[in-house]
Amino acid sequence: MVAGTKKRGNQTIVFDNPPVITSWASIVGPKEGQGPWAQDFDWIMEDYMFGEKTWEKAESKMLRETVKLALNKRNFSPEDAEVLLAGDLLNQIASSNFAARELNIPFLGLYGACSTMAEALITGSILLDGGFFSSVVAAACSHHYTAERQFRFPTEQGVQRAPSSQWTATAAGAVLLEAVAIGPRICSVTIGKVIDMGQNDASDMGSAMAPAAADTIKTHFNDLDILPDYYDLVLTGDLGTVGMAIAARLFVKEGLVPQPNYSDCGVLLFDDKQDVHSGGSGCGCSASFLCGPLMKKIINGEINKVLLVATGALMSPTTSNQGESIPGIAHAVAIEY
Amino acid sequence: MVAGTKKRGNQTIVFDNPPVITSWASIVGPKEGQGPWAQDFDWIMEDYMFGEKTWEKAESKMLRETVKLALNKRNFSPEDAEVLLAGDLLNQIASSNFAARELNIPFLGLYGACSTMAEALITGSILLDGGFFSSVVAAACSHHYTAERQFRFPTEQGVQRAPSSQWTATAAGAVLLEAVAIGPRICSVTIGKVIDMGQNDASDMGSAMAPAAADTIKTHFNDLDILPDYYDLVLTGDLGTVGMAIAARLFVKEGLVPQPNYSDCGVLLFDDKQDVHSGGSGCGCSASFLCGPLMKKIINGEINKVLLVATGALMSPTTSNQGESIPGIAHAVAIEY
Repeated sequence: MVAGTKKRGNQTIVFDNPPVITSWASIVGPKEGQGPWAQDFDWIMEDYMFGEKTWEKAESKMLRETVKLALNKRNFSPEDAEVLLAGDLLNQIASSNFAARELNIPFLGLYGACSTMAEALITGSILLDGGFFSSVVAAACSHHYTAERQFRFPTEQGVQRAPSSQWTATAAGAVLLEAVAIGPRICSVTIGKVIDMGQNDASDMGSAMAPAAADTIKTHFNDLDILPDYYDLVLTGDLGTVGMAIAARLFVKEGLVPQPNYSDCGVLLFDDKQDVHSGGSGCGCSASFLCGPLMKKIINGEINKVLLVATGALMSPTTSNQGESIPGIAHAVAIEY
Repeated sequence: MVAGTKKRGNQTIVFDNPPVITSWASIVGPKEGQGPWAQDFDWIMEDYMFGEKTWEKAESKMLRETVKLALNKRNFSPEDAEVLLAGDLLNQIASSNFAARELNIPFLGLYGACSTMAEALITGSILLDGGFFSSVVAAACSHHYTAERQFRFPTEQGVQRAPSSQWTATAAGAVLLEAVAIGPRICSVTIGKVIDMGQNDASDMGSAMAPAAADTIKTHFNDLDILPDYYDLVLTGDLGTVGMAIAARLFVKEGLVPQPNYSDCGVLLFDDKQDVHSGGSGCGCSASFLCGPLMKKIINGEINKVLLVATGALMSPTTSNQGESIPGIAHAVAIEY
């Protein structure tokens, strides 16, 4: 194989042997289980502790059990999976590290904030299409209460949330990718750049991520020389209502995505009545939406071609305190069935 | 390409077209510049601020300039690099995110604690050998003062360091990997598992990482069915004197690596007189040692075959406070010239 032969344009890869999503699973928290997609998730946690003593341990357990569930559905045990690609929002991606310890699967840790599920799918697809492995697991998770106290305020403080703020989803999604012939395939991926338009409000991640989403989507269409209506659905990760509105305007400006086929996991995950302000967010938002409602629609034939564009706000409390703005990144994964 | 055809044993990949290290660069801090390898690094910082207002900004600048230096040596500009694979020790890998923002190279963020340079080399090699890209940059960094205050104590506090503690290196290393025919090649890699023997002392990372190093090295030899003397040098990342002694005993127990060809970047990086106790550590330790002294020895023909086994202590202050032990991970990269 000559290097660079699968590359299209500047940032996009087209797979010769598209990896197939052979199994998937999602576990979500109580609030997510009260939303519009309750019947599409595998497991709804009764509380945020999940039988553990801390929220952080609960988050790691949620990721671990989601991976095991995805493997079980295919009659795989953890030993059958060749590599685990995972990440989360906790410092040092602690949830993923401890899940990988329990699962005992060779592990590559990723950090792309809320874009991590797409980063894992990209890396996993590369490992399969390149002939390196036959089965890999891509997974990501987030937990509302671990994220709030790490990135913002102690939850006991009861700080009033800004209208532009999003609700970090308590959710995990895991996908088993295999080198087989039939099933929903990952046909192409676009690796994003870090884009920063100077947004510095930690209560408005959507605005920080929207320019990166627009940049990656534009690049994807340009690199593949396809039109925006190629996909039945273009789905950003977790821009929420504020970020989605900005992204939609950026798309129109570029003549890119007609409104009807564009939506956002953060906008869809919760019901308007659930008081989540601008919508859902967190690595688990797009991960669980993919591994629940979206895969169901793909398998049912409701959607044949989808471009999932997971978006990450690369926010660090330390750098924000030092006056830095919040950079964003977005990676795109095209799934066809 | 049929998936799985490049895999050997359980965790090792052998490349059909081994990616070549065509350029490399290292920037280190003042203390590292006073050590035994001063003449082998490209740039020694005069102070820990590097012209910036905070240590964190200095760390990010160090990574960015190291990448630019590695690219410049090959007459590449950042636009010529197709993907940047990088990580660091800061929460949210902030140094890498901000470096990627300035460099404007498509970016995949990695977190493997001090094993990150090996993780970046593995992912980069896969991208080239699999035919996806022609040139990728793998990089990692750490900064003594950002790591101390994030993981342990405010440095102003002047806490007495334990004899088993290591000195997080202020250092960055960057490698340009290309799909060309001639040069030092990455022939095989072994992806490690998370191993945890219950060590819970945040002042003794070497003991936490040694079992993972031994596991990955044993797996590498078993997977490839080669003997320990195949390599001129087996070099762990940053076990330090305490961890290296444990690893050496584990190797002997497994009948693996004869003492003469085993060493550790953490033990080598500083002089005994430099008061670093158990040795150097941090992502930048193995990254700068590779991109300075080691590559020089490879190019000069002093070393023909080396197995670099970067080791990471997946330590999180949050999980440690919650009573968790410190898991370790190690990834191996075989370089031959």
